[in-house]
Amino acid sequence: MQASEAEWTDIEKTIARTAFDQAYKREVEALLKQVQEETSTLTELGELWRLHDFLSAKRHQVEGKYDYEYSALPFVFAGLVKEGWLHLSELEGLSQDKLAKISSLARM
Amino acid sequence: MQASEAEWTDIEKTIARTAFDQAYKREVEALLKQVQEETSTLTELGELWRLHDFLSAKRHQVEGKYDYEYSALPFVFAGLVKEGWLHLSELEGLSQDKLAKISSLARM
Repeated sequence: MQASEAEWTDIEKTIARTAFDQAYKREVEALLKQVQEETSTLTELGELWRLHDFLSAKRHQVEGKYDYEYSALPFVFAGLVKEGWLHLSELEGLSQDKLAKISSLARM
Repeated sequence: MQASEAEWTDIEKTIARTAFDQAYKREVEALLKQVQEETSTLTELGELWRLHDFLSAKRHQVEGKYDYEYSALPFVFAGLVKEGWLHLSELEGLSQDKLAKISSLARM
């Protein structure tokens, strides 16, 4: 068990997991929708390669972002709040220091 | 002017350019259609990344294939015939030795 995992109560873990999964679901759904919309109007190969470039960047970004390690979670949540995939209110129930840290990081 | 360009008459050049462009158009249209079809049924991120892998391979393949250099054209045409993007009959008018070479390469 990581040292930092001990700093999360069982209730906090449940809140964190739910919020994490919800943000992931939202971002994936939005991404799939965006790709479907952009693909539906493709008429040239150059557009397809631009989509390919976009997916290359997105894959790198998404795979790096959803890292469920307790020590990393405040940073992950701050990023998700900043990008609009999660609202701070969905993290209510976490300790005040965690919420303050996430809120502060999200404003950076 | 490349040495091998001299081996192509003006009529042959016109036939070659038309066939080349036609094959390219067919392959691009088929690729765009395939991507649109596969994208329309996307429901998971893993499927999107598989599409990304497919596009990475396809981009490499297509960009390497359509090389309009006269010295390379017989090989290009043979590949396009083999893959079904071009029919040998669309190259009629090229010299017999060129057609024989393309036909032979396409059967390899």
